[in-house]
Amino acid sequence: MEKDNGIKLFSKETYVRRRSLIKQLVGNGKLLFLGNEESSMNFKDNWYPFRQDSTFLYFFGLDLPGLSAIIDIDEDREILFGDDFTPEESVWHGVTPKLADLASQIGVDRVSSSTSISNYLAHVPSDRIHFLPPYRPENAQKLSALLRVPIGNIASGASIPFIKGVVSLRSVKSDEELAEIRRAVSTSAAMHQKVMREAKPGMKEFELVAMVTGEAIRSGGNLSFTPIITTNGQILHNHNYSNTLIAGKMLLCDFGAETAMHYAGDITRTLPVGHSFTDGQKEVYTIVHRAHQAAIHALTPGVKFLDIHLLACKQIAEGLRAIGLMKGDLDDAVAHGAHALFFPCGLGHMMGLDVHDMEDLGEEYVGYTDTLKKSTQFGVKSLRLGKELASGHVLTVEPGIYFNPLLIDQWQAEKHCSDYINYDQLAHFREFGGIRIEDNFVITPKGYELLGHPLETDSSDIEGMRSTLS
Amino acid sequence: MEKDNGIKLFSKETYVRRRSLIKQLVGNGKLLFLGNEESSMNFKDNWYPFRQDSTFLYFFGLDLPGLSAIIDIDEDREILFGDDFTPEESVWHGVTPKLADLASQIGVDRVSSSTSISNYLAHVPSDRIHFLPPYRPENAQKLSALLRVPIGNIASGASIPFIKGVVSLRSVKSDEELAEIRRAVSTSAAMHQKVMREAKPGMKEFELVAMVTGEAIRSGGNLSFTPIITTNGQILHNHNYSNTLIAGKMLLCDFGAETAMHYAGDITRTLPVGHSFTDGQKEVYTIVHRAHQAAIHALTPGVKFLDIHLLACKQIAEGLRAIGLMKGDLDDAVAHGAHALFFPCGLGHMMGLDVHDMEDLGEEYVGYTDTLKKSTQFGVKSLRLGKELASGHVLTVEPGIYFNPLLIDQWQAEKHCSDYINYDQLAHFREFGGIRIEDNFVITPKGYELLGHPLETDSSDIEGMRSTLS
Repeated sequence: MEKDNGIKLFSKETYVRRRSLIKQLVGNGKLLFLGNEESSMNFKDNWYPFRQDSTFLYFFGLDLPGLSAIIDIDEDREILFGDDFTPEESVWHGVTPKLADLASQIGVDRVSSSTSISNYLAHVPSDRIHFLPPYRPENAQKLSALLRVPIGNIASGASIPFIKGVVSLRSVKSDEELAEIRRAVSTSAAMHQKVMREAKPGMKEFELVAMVTGEAIRSGGNLSFTPIITTNGQILHNHNYSNTLIAGKMLLCDFGAETAMHYAGDITRTLPVGHSFTDGQKEVYTIVHRAHQAAIHALTPGVKFLDIHLLACKQIAEGLRAIGLMKGDLDDAVAHGAHALFFPCGLGHMMGLDVHDMEDLGEEYVGYTDTLKKSTQFGVKSLRLGKELASGHVLTVEPGIYFNPLLIDQWQAEKHCSDYINYDQLAHFREFGGIRIEDNFVITPKGYELLGHPLETDSSDIEGMRSTLS
Repeated sequence: MEKDNGIKLFSKETYVRRRSLIKQLVGNGKLLFLGNEESSMNFKDNWYPFRQDSTFLYFFGLDLPGLSAIIDIDEDREILFGDDFTPEESVWHGVTPKLADLASQIGVDRVSSSTSISNYLAHVPSDRIHFLPPYRPENAQKLSALLRVPIGNIASGASIPFIKGVVSLRSVKSDEELAEIRRAVSTSAAMHQKVMREAKPGMKEFELVAMVTGEAIRSGGNLSFTPIITTNGQILHNHNYSNTLIAGKMLLCDFGAETAMHYAGDITRTLPVGHSFTDGQKEVYTIVHRAHQAAIHALTPGVKFLDIHLLACKQIAEGLRAIGLMKGDLDDAVAHGAHALFFPCGLGHMMGLDVHDMEDLGEEYVGYTDTLKKSTQFGVKSLRLGKELASGHVLTVEPGIYFNPLLIDQWQAEKHCSDYINYDQLAHFREFGGIRIEDNFVITPKGYELLGHPLETDSSDIEGMRSTLS
């Protein structure tokens, strides 16, 4: 009776090609891929929605718990490990396709039981087994058992050639991947438009979280990350939704959809809770918008994203100098990190099967290189992507200006960067909040392309969306 | 700026009293409570919505990650372990109340850093440390480190006196808990009414999942478990939502809300996808409804829930005999488990801070006793609650009739219970699906009380809700 099992795959050739490429890149040994398990909330069988590991999805496509796989380069063999449901399990969970049938859809011809993976690896020296760093505790435990290595030593044993190979493949998005990402971003934009039209003074932030969660699921996918919908936009990763929307304040909305195939979108807009921004809000909004535009126009292959980040920092510093909050030589100010009082985070990050694409594999491999290392300076140290852009890279551009009283007090007490910051002027901005604007782009051979349906960005266009508020 | 931190607590006295009671029940040693951590989806910092451990909530109330606690009975001391945000963390995550202030709101006067718990326990013999069975892998790892015991030995080392003490306290709901549960159930009922009014032929099941997820969050809480919304109601725990709603089929909806304080509701209704049930559907619906009514009327202190389960099984068997699907002596049929072809699961379960309340502590303690052990027979072995009911118990009553072609084929091939089942008549029911009706009750001194706002149950009342469909 259950004809559509809900498993969506690219063509068999896609997965075969990807696996063939990673074999060539790593060259020898056994590549171990651990899928994810169900994740328990408040008791074992009360599960969060299942989320498969993204690298497993990239090479094996199968969006089901309890799977693992080996690409044995030495033996030229690929094996998928997992178990079919018993008849009694099918009573509870339904009839799913046999694992062997699923394997054939992705071009894998060997299937074995989930437990047999330990036999397969039992006599393999651990330095022949390439694995990726685990981010879920159960997979760390599995690796510890499979490799016969104490759990505390697992993270440091991950294979750098394997990591680098996966990063080089996943960093360049194919046309079929771009189609999925465009879908994710367009859904994300539609969710933002709904909030722009329907957010009203008196609402609680969580009512808007409810709206966007429902819209993401209604699209056939889900959210790509826990939404940030807050009247305290100065708090960068704020997951408190208990505040009431009050006219005169701004609402910072940072959320995105994930498609059924798990490709992400990630958009931010900042709106007035009432019909329009105040003059002061619009002034700061315009600075952020200019930095956003300047950064976008600089996107092109061969340019370091670190340099685009610094360009945006300088734009922000110039804007803040024009309204009296910063002062002095702005190249020096940015070099000293003075702008980071207002923009303490990075300009953007890679995006794909993960909203922060491949963050589990390590920013030093995804966003930096052997020669370009991440800065340790407050602000730019939070930039996840610094290296040269290349055609096919997908990334976010998300400058912002934030007024965080805690950080202002701390810097002011330390007289930090006081050559560049007019602390006396900042007293008026303690209740201002924060503004961020974020869109998603693919790098093309000659520049960039905005992904998904364009979404209102100009402060006047956003006010236009807000004008129909009752 | 962030005045309401969103943490909801009962009065200080509630938590002080609960902790005092568990101290008396266990008598000596050190009671170790591990709160939950954030749970990673596809990379470490992309988290599922945080869900605190329910026992931690019961005794310490604090709905925040990274906490643990000890009630040291020997030293008459209670300590909460956790860390305040650093100033830099506050830039990202906001200003939260100091842990010492939160501790004072729950009557705990000692606070210490998260890492100091290992020092506290370093010289305590492990048989003096009482802990509960972990259901999240990271807490199993923590216990292994704290107790200096291999991770494989943790589950068997959980303290039975501690488990029994917690079960005895959490099983009897206080008035303030019942008020929360009524709120959860009423929200769940309102979610069901929305589906009853808005589910339409042509919709995908996931569109309804979107609707109820949004409604649950809009209530200020969340879902209490992953919803079952399916046209394949015969699959008991079906989390596939890819089917299209087709007139003539039925839709089985089993979902509930959890309040902001994490008390659960759990309701099931089965509706016609079109305006009305077919005659055949109504016939089976009526059997389930009668079993539901009979079971409800039997709820009273001192009665074993196992006996009420068997009463419902007999009602179901009688109804199925009347329509020609079962035959023979029905007491014998139920004793042989013949009804379990149609009703392979349990009549209900405890409900509270968990939708299957305290399932992590072990069904043998929550639903059974030292003298009443769970059956191993297919069907009744899935009954989570068998023991005598007592005033203050909260539970679900959820009989159902399911036609699972896989199970029918298996039993028929084995001629299993063929004295009681007319297999030749079952051919017409292979595409029927399944029907379940579920409500939530508290046991009172003289009987029972339906929790929450009453929801349409009669097939005609449900058809009434469906009549406004366009």
